[in-house]
Order: sequence, then C-alpha cells, then structure tokens
Amino acid sequence: MIVVMKVGSSQDEISKVTKRIEDAGLKAHLSEGIEYTVIGVLGQVFPELRDTLELLSGVEQVIPVTKPYKLASREFHPKDTIVKINGVAIGGNEIVVMAGPCAIESEEQLLATAHAVKAAGATVLRGGAFKPRTSPYQFRGLGESGLKMLAQVSKETQMPIITEVMAPNDVGLVAKYADILQIGARNMQNFVLLDEVGKTKKPVLLKRGLASNIQEWMLAAEYVLAQGNEQVILCERGIRTFENYTRNTMDVSAIPIIEKVSHLPIIADPSHATGKWYLVSPLALAAVAAGADGLLIEVHPNPDMALADGPQSLTFDNFRLLMSQLLPIAKARNRKLATPSARTKP
Amino acid sequence: MIVVMKVGSSQDEISKVTKRIEDAGLKAHLSEGIEYTVIGVLGQVFPELRDTLELLSGVEQVIPVTKPYKLASREFHPKDTIVKINGVAIGGNEIVVMAGPCAIESEEQLLATAHAVKAAGATVLRGGAFKPRTSPYQFRGLGESGLKMLAQVSKETQMPIITEVMAPNDVGLVAKYADILQIGARNMQNFVLLDEVGKTKKPVLLKRGLASNIQEWMLAAEYVLAQGNEQVILCERGIRTFENYTRNTMDVSAIPIIEKVSHLPIIADPSHATGKWYLVSPLALAAVAAGADGLLIEVHPNPDMALADGPQSLTFDNFRLLMSQLLPIAKARNRKLATPSARTKP
Amino acid sequence: MIVVMKVGSSQDEISKVTKRIEDAGLKAHLSEGIEYTVIGVLGQVFPELRDTLELLSGVEQVIPVTKPYKLASREFHPKDTIVKINGVAIGGNEIVVMAGPCAIESEEQLLATAHAVKAAGATVLRGGAFKPRTSPYQFRGLGESGLKMLAQVSKETQMPIITEVMAPNDVGLVAKYADILQIGARNMQNFVLLDEVGKTKKPVLLKRGLASNIQEWMLAAEYVLAQGNEQVILCERGIRTFENYTRNTMDVSAIPIIEKVSHLPIIADPSHATGKWYLVSPLALAAVAAGADGLLIEVHPNPDMALADGPQSLTFDNFRLLMSQLLPIAKARNRKLATPSARTKP
Amino acid sequence: MIVVMKVGSSQDEISKVTKRIEDAGLKAHLSEGIEYTVIGVLGQVFPELRDTLELLSGVEQVIPVTKPYKLASREFHPKDTIVKINGVAIGGNEIVVMAGPCAIESEEQLLATAHAVKAAGATVLRGGAFKPRTSPYQFRGLGESGLKMLAQVSKETQMPIITEVMAPNDVGLVAKYADILQIGARNMQNFVLLDEVGKTKKPVLLKRGLASNIQEWMLAAEYVLAQGNEQVILCERGIRTFENYTRNTMDVSAIPIIEKVSHLPIIADPSHATGKWYLVSPLALAAVAAGADGLLIEVHPNPDMALADGPQSLTFDNFRLLMSQLLPIAKARNRKLATPSARTKP
Repeated sequence: MIVVMKVGSSQDEISKVTKRIEDAGLKAHLSEGIEYTVIGVLGQVFPELRDTLELLSGVEQVIPVTKPYKLASREFHPKDTIVKINGVAIGGNEIVVMAGPCAIESEEQLLATAHAVKAAGATVLRGGAFKPRTSPYQFRGLGESGLKMLAQVSKETQMPIITEVMAPNDVGLVAKYADILQIGARNMQNFVLLDEVGKTKKPVLLKRGLASNIQEWMLAAEYVLAQGNEQVILCERGIRTFENYTRNTMDVSAIPIIEKVSHLPIIADPSHATGKWYLVSPLALAAVAAGADGLLIEVHPNPDMALADGPQSLTFDNFRLLMSQLLPIAKARNRKLATPSARTKP
Repeated sequence: MIVVMKVGSSQDEISKVTKRIEDAGLKAHLSEGIEYTVIGVLGQVFPELRDTLELLSGVEQVIPVTKPYKLASREFHPKDTIVKINGVAIGGNEIVVMAGPCAIESEEQLLATAHAVKAAGATVLRGGAFKPRTSPYQFRGLGESGLKMLAQVSKETQMPIITEVMAPNDVGLVAKYADILQIGARNMQNFVLLDEVGKTKKPVLLKRGLASNIQEWMLAAEYVLAQGNEQVILCERGIRTFENYTRNTMDVSAIPIIEKVSHLPIIADPSHATGKWYLVSPLALAAVAAGADGLLIEVHPNPDMALADGPQSLTFDNFRLLMSQLLPIAKARNRKLATPSARTKP
Repeated sequence: MIVVMKVGSSQDEISKVTKRIEDAGLKAHLSEGIEYTVIGVLGQVFPELRDTLELLSGVEQVIPVTKPYKLASREFHPKDTIVKINGVAIGGNEIVVMAGPCAIESEEQLLATAHAVKAAGATVLRGGAFKPRTSPYQFRGLGESGLKMLAQVSKETQMPIITEVMAPNDVGLVAKYADILQIGARNMQNFVLLDEVGKTKKPVLLKRGLASNIQEWMLAAEYVLAQGNEQVILCERGIRTFENYTRNTMDVSAIPIIEKVSHLPIIADPSHATGKWYLVSPLALAAVAAGADGLLIEVHPNPDMALADGPQSLTFDNFRLLMSQLLPIAKARNRKLATPSARTKP
Repeated sequence: MIVVMKVGSSQDEISKVTKRIEDAGLKAHLSEGIEYTVIGVLGQVFPELRDTLELLSGVEQVIPVTKPYKLASREFHPKDTIVKINGVAIGGNEIVVMAGPCAIESEEQLLATAHAVKAAGATVLRGGAFKPRTSPYQFRGLGESGLKMLAQVSKETQMPIITEVMAPNDVGLVAKYADILQIGARNMQNFVLLDEVGKTKKPVLLKRGLASNIQEWMLAAEYVLAQGNEQVILCERGIRTFENYTRNTMDVSAIPIIEKVSHLPIIADPSHATGKWYLVSPLALAAVAAGADGLLIEVHPNPDMALADGPQSLTFDNFRLLMSQLLPIAKARNRKLATPSARTKP
C-alpha cells in the first residue's frame, strides 16, 4: 500500500500518517518527490487500513498494491485448477459444453432436450428448477419436483447436472441432486449464499454480476474458496452497459483476463449475455476463440412455447449447427471438445 | 402490447400471430401501415406473451405498453403512500433524516452517535449489524449482539431503528429488533429475501441495485407489495457508471422520476453513492432540492478509526453543519424537517 | 509516478527500469516491500513515460501520482476563476441563468423568448444556429442568419449571447457574434476545435462529453487553457449510463468535484441531461443546491411546435416558476441570483 | 410511429393528437384497448414528429417503428456492400488485416513495420499522422510529413494505406495520400467531418463512438452515405463501461448485429478496445470467429519505445503468431485470409 501526501502537506501530517502505520504493526518507508511525498507501507496490510489512512489530514490518496484476493489469484497459485465431475474435466484441454432448457417445464421436455444436446456433443445438462425472475408475476420454476426430474433424466442419459441455487436455505436440497451448483449473476454478491455453497465442497459455477468488475468477481470467488471449496468455475454472462440492442454486453475480454489473473476455469454463457438466439452462436464461437474452457447454452425443443427466456434459446437444429462450427474453432486453439462419456452414478 | 411485423411479412405470418394472441384469450387488432403492419393486443396481457410472440416468424418487435408493475405504480394508486413508524411519517410533508454509523462497533460508539445525530435533528437511527462486504476478509458486523445494542440505544434515545437484513433466515431475528428492514443494493434482486420481508408487514427500505433501472427497481418493490406489505420506502444510492472518481454515480433524477411513476416515498443515501465524506453534504442538499422525502447519512464519532466505510462518514460537526444547511433547502421546497419527537416503545 | 514490480521480479529487471527512468533525466527511488518492490520516479514526468515503463519486463503496474493537467487544476491555481461578460460574472457569488430556445427558428421566436426569460431573471441568452443532430435528416440550424438574429435580439434586450460552434472553420464567424462560445458534449474531444476556440480569447463553455470522466474533461479544458485562453466555463450535461428513462444521467456529484479539483466555474444543463421538461426544474434546483455557479436552460414559446428538442424545453410559465423556486435555494447556499442588468454593446 | 395515450385520456385529447397527425399529411389509425388507447401513424414520418406528439396533453409515449436510417440498413439494401481498394476487397469472403504503428515516427520505423506485417499476411498498412490525444501535452503526430512517409512506404511495399483524418479542413490533404480515410471514435458524431469525408467518395472507415449505441452508429454512417459515398467500413473498437481493467470493453456482439441490420462491412480493432497487448490476439480471434470482415491491429518494432500507445502494440513476433492462429479460425468460418497482392498505384 502506498500513501501519497498532498502538495504542501506538513511534516506533522507526515509524522501522523507514519505513526498510524507503525501503530498497525507495519513499516512506513518515506520517499520525497519534487511535488509529492510518498509513504510506502511494508508488511501484511489489512483492507480497512486504506480507508483509515485516506481520512488522515494531508493525505491525497492511498493506492493498494497487493491484490485483495489470494486464493483465487494465479500469482499465489500458478497452476490451472481443473474441476472434475464424474469424468468431465473443466479447465483442462477439453472444451466442455453445458446445455439444456432455461427452466424445467416437464420431464418430457427435459428428457428430449437432454438426448438432443448429448447427441450433438454436450457433456453437462443444465436446467433451472429455481428461477430468479425480475417480476413477481413470472414463472419461478418447479422447485424440488424440477430437481427430481433433473435427477431422473441425469440417470437415464448419464449426464452430470448443473442447476441454480438461489437461497442459503436451499443449498442442502439442491446439492442433493446437482453435480454443479450454479450461482446466478444477481447473487454474485449474496455473501451468505456464497458462504453456504462454499461449505458444501460441491463444484460451484459463479456467474459474473451485471455490475461487477473483475476484482469484485475474484473476491466473490474468494468467499467460496475461503470456505475450503476449491472447485469454482467462473462464468462470463454479460455486463450492463448503455447498449440496449442486446440484453447485456458480453465482455469477451474477461476470458483472457481471467486466464491471466486466476487459475480457475472460465466459461461463457452467450444465451443470457445477448438475450437473442441469433447472437448465441457467433458469441459462443468468439468465446472459445478467446480461450474459454466451456459454454453454457440454452436449448429448448420449441423456443416459442418456452415458459422462460424463449427468445434466447436455440432449437435442436441450431444447437447441432453450433456444435459443428465449434469443433474447428476448438482445434484452431489446439483444444478438443469434451466427448459425452458413459458415467456411473451410484 | 403491440406487435410490429417485419417489412414484407406474409399474410400467413400475420395470421399465425393473430391466432396465437387469440389462443391466449386476448383480442388482436390489425393496423396496416405503408411500411409496417402493426397488431395491437387487447386484454390483460401476461409478461411471457412478449417472449412468445417475439419468436414467431415475421415479427420485427413486440412493444409492451402497459407497465409490468401495478401495485407500485402511481397510475393505479394515485395517492402518496406515507409510511408511519412510531410517530415518524415518511413520504408526507416532512423530510426525515436517518443517521448513524455504517457498522455498529460498540454500545458507546452507537449511543454517542445517536445522541449527537438526534440533537442535530435526525429522527431515525441507522446502524449495521450484518454488513455485506466485497471481501471475505473484511469486518462483517457484530450480528445479533449488534442488534441488541441498537435496541438498547433506541430505548434510551427514543429513536426508531433502521438496519439491514441480508439473508432470508435472518428476517425474523432482525424484525424482532428493527423498525425498518433495510434491503441493500446488492440484494435488490434477491427475490427470496424480498418475499420474506414482504411477509413481515414491517416497513421495508429498498435500495436501488447498482445496475438496476427504474423499472427493475419498481418490480423489486412489487415483490414486497405482492406479499401484502404496503410499507415500502425506496432509496437511491448511486448506480454503476464509467466514472470512478466517486464510488457510484448518484442518479438524482431518479427522485422526481419515482415521484412521477410511483406513490412510494423516496429517500437518498449520498454516503454510499459518493463514497467520499466531502461530497455527502452537497449531494444531500441536491437530493432534497430535487424532492426527496428523506436522507440516509453515515455519521461516526471518529471516521478515521471506523471499522467500515470511514471515508464516507460525516463527523458530528459536519453532520450538524449539513442539518443547518438542509433547513432552508427544505423550506424552499415548502417542506419541513421532521423533528425528533418523544416516542414510547412498549 | 510509481512503478510497482511483479512478485519475484529479478534484480536485472529492476535495474533496467531504474536505468530507463534515469535515461529520461529523472531519479529512481527504490523501496522494497515484503511482497512487492516499488520504484518512485522523481522529477517532472512526461505522460508517455507511463506507457513506456508499463511495457518493461517485470513491471506489474505504473501508477501516476501527479495529475496530468495543471492549468485547469486548483492545486496549482487555488483562486476561483471568474469569467466576466459585459457585466455578468460567472463563477463568483451570483448564480447565472442562461436560457433560450434549443434552435433559433425565427427572429420573432427568439425575441419573444429573450424578453420572457429576461423578465423572469435570466441574464444570458442561449440559442443554437449550428445544431449537432444525430440524424442527417433532422433540422441542423439556420447558420449565419441565425447568428444575425441572435445579434439583433441581443442588441434589443441587452443580453449577452451563448451559442454553439461545431467546426474549426466556423470559429471566426461565430466569435464575431457570440459572447460565449459553446463546445457541445460530442465535441469535447474535438481537439482541433478546442485549439481554435483557445486562440480566440473569447469565453468558452465546455460541456462534458457523454463518456468522459472528470480527468478527461479537465484535460479538454487544458487544451483551451494551453492556448492562453483562461476564460473557460465547465458545464455538466449528463453522462451515458444503462438507465434509459432519461436521455442521460446528470452527474450532480461532478459539481462539488469540479469545485474541489478546479478553479473554473461549473454550471449545469438539466435540459439536455434529462431530455424531459418535467425533470428540468427538479434537477436545476438540485444543481444549485449542490453548488453550481449557473444553469443553462431550454425555453421555447411553444415547445410542442419546436423544431428541435421540444420535449425538454420549458414553457415561459414553467421557466418563471423555476426561477421563483430557485431564489430561496440560492439563498440557502448564501448566494444571489444574478440580475439582468443594462449593458452596452459597442 | 405509434402514439400510446395515457389511461383515462379524454376524447378531446385523442382528437387533438389525431388532428396534429393529419395536419402533417399523415393518417391516424385509432385502436382502443382495455387500458390504453393507441394511435398508429401511417405514412412517411419525419423524425421531429415524435418530439412534437410526445408533448401533447394525454400522450403517454410515442414509439418509433421505422428505423431512422435507410441507406445503411440491410432492410432497404439486402445485398452486402464490398469496398474495393486496389485489389483488396473488404466485406466479401476474405478477412482483411490492416496493421501498422499507432503513430508514424520515422520512415525507417514505418518501412520496417510495413515489410514485417506484409510478410506476415497483412494487406493494408495503418499509421497515424494526425493523432487525437487526450492531453495537449502528448505527441500529436507528424502531420503532412507523416502522410508523405506513408505514401512513400505504400509505394515501396505496394500496400494500400489507412490513416486518420481529424478535421474537416484536412480532408482534402489526407485524401490525397490515403486509400481509406479513418474517422476515429471521438469523431463519430463530428457531423461536419462526416459530411466532408462523405463528399470525397474515398472509402471511409468509421469507428464506433465510445458512448454510441448501434443506432447512433448507423446514423453516423448515414451521414456519409447521404453525401453519395457508399464505401463505408464500420469498425468496433470498444465502448465505455464501468470495467476498468481494459481501456474499453470490446462489444463483440456488435459484429453479428451489424451483419444483421446493415449491408456494410464490419471489422474490429482489438488494440484500442483493450489497451493491452496480451489481450489483442484473443480478441482478434474472437472477432473473426464472430464474423468480422477484418481487423485493425497496432504493430510496432519496439513497443516499449513507441511514442504513442506502446502497451497495446504487438511486436513483429507476436503479430506473426496472431496471423498463424487466425488462419484456422478464418477457415472454421469458411473464409480465407486476404493475401497481400501486387498492386499498381499510378
């Protein structure tokens, strides 16, 4: 941490800053410039110190140097984390595609979709039983009966399951059925929920919040990791910008940034990012070209009859087409597509 | 709801749209322009219909006409809602100032602050026992022991209490102590939490989410109102923008907009919006000049020693100065400052 | 400027950074922390150095300490700048209101508006002869014949004139008629235009760009000041955010920020910021409560017949009402409203 | 255009709206819903009508249906535009890579870079002689002597040239040397400049403004097209968002959106979008995977000594690596890379 003093700050002000740093058990290192005096803080700094120092008289600004997250940081953990779920490895050389309906509507819908996406090359089945909805009047999911359908279809198709959990109280229930617990964008800073999924030791997919920058996203991951759960997958799904042609703006640059600053796997969700089915495939290809470890795609047997997010769902045909386009893109990046493999669930 | 057909859409496409509308028990009203054909949808529209129609072949766009919220809307509830808490009325002619520390640190800190802010004209005491923190390594509040301190200080000073609740499970506990339940910006779309506070029938202060537009904020209020809880207070606390001089950008225009579109009271929180103590007073005055019904202000006996959000807290002196400047601004808008009045808590 | 080296950077990398700094005629000051090594750069730093150092091997980040603008900065020019135009002083104790139509349509329209706004208390007449329009098919202003109408009406009403200049080539022409040259938001970084108005020595009103942060705005002012023109007035007119209820989001906090970082006067334009007439008055009052030195307001005799920006223009009645509300707000901030005074134009 | 009347609007208000529409020579088509009355406007609507109608008593909102741009729209011009420059075709099946230094510094630097990028597969040479700089104290380019170097190097290498023009007055000069006139992001709404480049009939590359949405970008293109210049290439180079890890956020979704709404070619500039060299290649690959017709890339022989934008420039080695990765991505999208071909300049 570096404290920059104001032009013309007094010797007395500088001494008080120095003393406050030393009172905190740290060392202060003075460096006087022509226009500014700068005080370096040496030692293991705690985050509140910045706030404290910034308020002292004569202080112009306090600049944090160390990143506030460690467990999620590549600097302190250079090797890639690979999350393994019953034979599927996320974050390694293979691109993992997770696909399925936004909301589970019935066992037929789910089973038909699972068979179709597996045949096309998806390795994980997605489906929502608890749905966050902007309006209280929209369909909010089937709840536990949806989870049971997921489990049943998972058994029949031998596909692992990802599904969203929205409330700390539901974590136990959802963890009973799901292979990956999904934390939605709106819950990225639901800290109580992050603590709870951290305690489960189940793989967690953490979507980026709509208004969250890279550092806040890393800190949200840090919540899960700090509970001892190392199986975190990050998911870029668009941020909020002034552009309203798309629902959100998918920040493709987040993919190589995460690769640089973190050891955690990073996948992309072009369905929610764009909100329009005809943009899903181009953005899915872009994400993999940029280095994504996988994709999360909404697929529905009959999008125009879907109970939720129909306009952003691919038909079976469109999904098959996407998968065929994805293969050469993956190869161009020296990666393979994960192949749906037999798996035994006890 | 209005369906705009694409240039050159066929008669068959138009018929299919019309049929889908009629299948939903609604009426379709055709209007053919030179370049576009437009189909009006008459009847009580449900939100999913938009998604459904947008996917049909030949449809250019679907434009919702009716607002998706009703209970929160001034259109369907023209009279101002006034939330009353033990003699304090929020949303009427008086400006209500809620003040206190960001986080409760000790009973002495809280009591000293309560006395100081009450003497200066605040009528509600704020203080956090459960704190949402970006990093898992920051101080997260005293929990129930903090709530007990709040209750004790409330009794001594006869000030009603506002405090944040972060998890659905804590709603019962917090409601036992608090007069107003605060929902923080990061939880504005924590729908399970909104349902829970809706069920309590306690006044709820709903902060605007960092990435939430006016309509989404209204829909979040609708969640609480839909549970039968009519005592909702809205609070503007800054939105996320590209400007990083301030922590967030306080959207002062939201104040007169809310006044126009909703009957609910609207207050402002310039402390969190700006993140800098020297901007709090100018923005507080601006909010009241723009028509705000009240303010939520962080005050700390010794901001540079605060455990949370020190740099945005006012000292007692600065808070007194703000209150003295506020009085003529309130008068200029033909309003009074609420006066701290005796109140009896059973 | 401070250079932060990466964890584990080598002695050789550190030496190369040090050498590069010394090659630039500056001093390097080494400070080794537990996790990071930091190198302070002492001396008069030029902006490109940051880019250069950031690319060197082993460098984590380069943090600028000195602000990149000096002439616009309060640090190097503590006393307020007051811009004086024929008896009107902007940036002093008086609040200056500039009002008039968005676009000049005819001499009758302009004269009627000028008389009305002067009678209500405006001291400067605004009116556009060159209009930036998003679409090439919209009305783009009357050009020089509009300027002549402005001059004529200015003579009759004894009001100084503010009007926009859009192209470097038009600066001479517009300067012949105008008392204040307005640079619109879209031209805030039209650097050739900034150079040109800088050369005129005429007062310049510089609107903030829609996507410009405080520092970029200061640097744009620096362009004008660097040409020797010290008469710059800043104008907040809304920034682009995700909220689309308003045309832009007026950043009221920019007003006290500018007051802190710069000596230049700051006014607000709530008409363009909001785009809706019923939001103009609340935001105008908010701006003055927050410390603005003046306002720029669109007024039109008959807004629903206006050729440009009708929906954001006040009627004469609404403008009179605003001025009556403004007076007590100005008083509450210990300021006066400037009074329209006789003035002689040669 | 559709006019939605307020709940409870009177018969008289409806009649006045109808009359105003008919006074404008258009037809009004009434449609009464349960909650709202809607009036369709039939005929060739001019943009100002929206503003006018929105102000009338009883009007809730006015919804434009027709897009405000026609010449740039795919709807009215379904066939792709292909811009041809001395044997290079932009917007066809081939991916065109334009590369070179941000600013021209010397003939040696330019020539070395040109040879290197041509050898690696670039077909157009970029280089700035007039540089827009945020600060007046930064290097602003070599001006005409830079243009002459460009011309000389173009002759030697047989590569067409793209370079920026910043001022209407310079258009003639720059057009004398350049094959493509580049309009920078900050000038996207410099309407006088757009008119001027429109008049030249030279190919124009129009970068998206930092705060411009798709529609405003299309309207800026419309300015050029409306002057009779049909050779417009669009370039996505990042928009301004709250994320500050990157300089801007590259909106990759803009690429397939432009492909859908417009017939104009679309390329991407990952160098300016990200501001960091190690993000340039991943984003370049993403852009082509998403369907871009080409790339604009900064390359410098010695980025850490560059006079402008060093940190975002690729070295020759990194550029060669990018080109080798690009080839299979292009193939995956059934496209080729354009090959540097002999060309004769008179």
